[in-house]
Amino acid sequence: MSLPRGFDVAEYRDRLARAQGRMADAGLGALLLTTEPEVRYFTGFLTRFWESPSRPWFLVLPAQGDPVAVIPSIGAALMDRTWLRDIRTWAAPDPKDDGVSLLAEALREAGGPVGVPSHGETHLRMPLADFDRLKAQSGLVFTDDRRIVAGCRAIKSAAEIARIEAACAVAGRAFDRVGEIAAPGVSLAQVFRQFQRLLLEEGADWVPYLAGGAGPEGYADVISPATDAPLVQGDVLMLDTGAVLDGYFCDFDRNVVIGSAGAVARAAHARLIEATQAGLEAARPGVRACDVWRAMARVAGADEAAGRMGHGLGMQLTEGLSLSAADETVLCPGMVITLEPVVRTAPGRIMVHEENIVITEGGSRALSPLSGADLRVV
Amino acid sequence: MSLPRGFDVAEYRDRLARAQGRMADAGLGALLLTTEPEVRYFTGFLTRFWESPSRPWFLVLPAQGDPVAVIPSIGAALMDRTWLRDIRTWAAPDPKDDGVSLLAEALREAGGPVGVPSHGETHLRMPLADFDRLKAQSGLVFTDDRRIVAGCRAIKSAAEIARIEAACAVAGRAFDRVGEIAAPGVSLAQVFRQFQRLLLEEGADWVPYLAGGAGPEGYADVISPATDAPLVQGDVLMLDTGAVLDGYFCDFDRNVVIGSAGAVARAAHARLIEATQAGLEAARPGVRACDVWRAMARVAGADEAAGRMGHGLGMQLTEGLSLSAADETVLCPGMVITLEPVVRTAPGRIMVHEENIVITEGGSRALSPLSGADLRVV
Repeated sequence: MSLPRGFDVAEYRDRLARAQGRMADAGLGALLLTTEPEVRYFTGFLTRFWESPSRPWFLVLPAQGDPVAVIPSIGAALMDRTWLRDIRTWAAPDPKDDGVSLLAEALREAGGPVGVPSHGETHLRMPLADFDRLKAQSGLVFTDDRRIVAGCRAIKSAAEIARIEAACAVAGRAFDRVGEIAAPGVSLAQVFRQFQRLLLEEGADWVPYLAGGAGPEGYADVISPATDAPLVQGDVLMLDTGAVLDGYFCDFDRNVVIGSAGAVARAAHARLIEATQAGLEAARPGVRACDVWRAMARVAGADEAAGRMGHGLGMQLTEGLSLSAADETVLCPGMVITLEPVVRTAPGRIMVHEENIVITEGGSRALSPLSGADLRVV
Repeated sequence: MSLPRGFDVAEYRDRLARAQGRMADAGLGALLLTTEPEVRYFTGFLTRFWESPSRPWFLVLPAQGDPVAVIPSIGAALMDRTWLRDIRTWAAPDPKDDGVSLLAEALREAGGPVGVPSHGETHLRMPLADFDRLKAQSGLVFTDDRRIVAGCRAIKSAAEIARIEAACAVAGRAFDRVGEIAAPGVSLAQVFRQFQRLLLEEGADWVPYLAGGAGPEGYADVISPATDAPLVQGDVLMLDTGAVLDGYFCDFDRNVVIGSAGAVARAAHARLIEATQAGLEAARPGVRACDVWRAMARVAGADEAAGRMGHGLGMQLTEGLSLSAADETVLCPGMVITLEPVVRTAPGRIMVHEENIVITEGGSRALSPLSGADLRVV
């Protein structure tokens, strides 16, 4: 890709300043971060090694000053190439004290109360027994993070948006080539493998997520793994990918039909594109997530049981707001979201379409190459 | 692949019976499971949708009777295709009550104390604030799971071992083809992309993990992402993969040299193979993890600072014991582990070799196609 890898130090300093501003408002002495996106957001520490659950990783954000990394020594060389200068390591995994004493000390230096991400979409990536020990050993007050980290991450910088757009371009080129890999008699499992290959060929670093489905007039759900059942003439094939470029996701899908499309599938696809367009037009600063949901649901003929029709996107496949009837989050410039309307096509069958957009000062702008209304035939 | 997908119900019944036997010994009323491998181990629920952090998923194992799934409705169709019959759903994400009430009710029916995985390698995959609410709302006592889930998972069934062996065969075929993708002038980032393609072509369902490194006489670390720096003559290239087949991982590596190898790299590779062989010979029932570590460390010339030289393997890239000086876990038939010796080749440079084996009644057996002592030239 033509974009440089990683970000300037100024980007991380800005993220830190925004977090510390909110910490001051909330009266927090420190934030304790334990998950991959949280640690990476403030450091730039990018590795697939998080796939291994064996070692915990910690980042302490003090109320003033720079972050302190408390990490397994196996990560020292890589963390040292980030902008962080205070890097403390231990030989993990240590069955007797897996970083708890070292972390307690770093937190005591920062002082409490210690905010820990505790609300929607978050978890604490360390053993619960070690968290109890940490609380006892540090003697500090632990509380929730007042959604500070999620709030910072929700507004993307220009550099972040450029990365998501580049990831979208990768997937767009791969979707253009679906005709090379999908044909009657080819199993869905084989299509999944080949589509991951196309994404890599088009420049994805890796493909953490691929879902999809196939069937006449749509598919039963969008989270099942592929089976060895072969595609047949008339099947609607949907592929939905989260491909990653430099640590940022795209998340959109395409429907195609094998051979020739029936009237139901063609009409459903046209309706999905119309609903997506309605979402794109509705999405602008000051509008609520539920308003965008409603604009799409109206066209798609969906009710609340249809669930959410889009979500935030960035360092994770899904993050932040939901386009649902219940989510009243107000859209702001810099938010990157997916528009993901669903249409029921037959009993137990649906079709789903998805695009990625960014909220701008004046409205919104597509990051994925928008699909036309005609259901593509391969 | 020739193996059928998934397992017979008898496999899950056996896993449940083993867990419930241990729960009875520990006096637990229920186990609460929240992570992908924990839920899948007892249900067979296999989806890449866990990549999305937006929804929590819960499984309740009662002291008697079958497990209860408390999950987002988007997963109902897929969970219904497993052996579970008690599946309770809610429309997630629900910002007001994201499954907590439903889960509290299911746990109250089972009764406490509720064991939650709380020790090494585990975490609680739900927001901490929701966990506090769950404890208050259920009125039950929550405690740790006495390592019951880890203990069950550590001993693999014949069907599980067959899957890991099949994943190893996929990676073995891909490693045989490294000569197709590695050459002077090709960037390491491009080699990483192409190697993922080879793994998919050879039958991997997906490639959750790929690491590696390249340089003269080895590499600085084994967790950094690939850069755009091109390979040059004489570089030692290492690729280390966790490829997945039907939900089970392989985890082994290969070193090759670009062009021709220097004496240091050739000697280091021969030593690594010798250390691996020593590990294979030492690994048998009744021997401790630290004993296997010591057998390898002696040959590799490593001390405790070198860290662990292998680990358990299965539904996760790394799981269970560590081959380290500190881990006194006793090996049992059915344990699948990696042997991963490391040799320092120059200041700041290492070489690592890795193979996968299973502990048998009489000793151990290789699951990956063992490498010869000669450093392969591509």
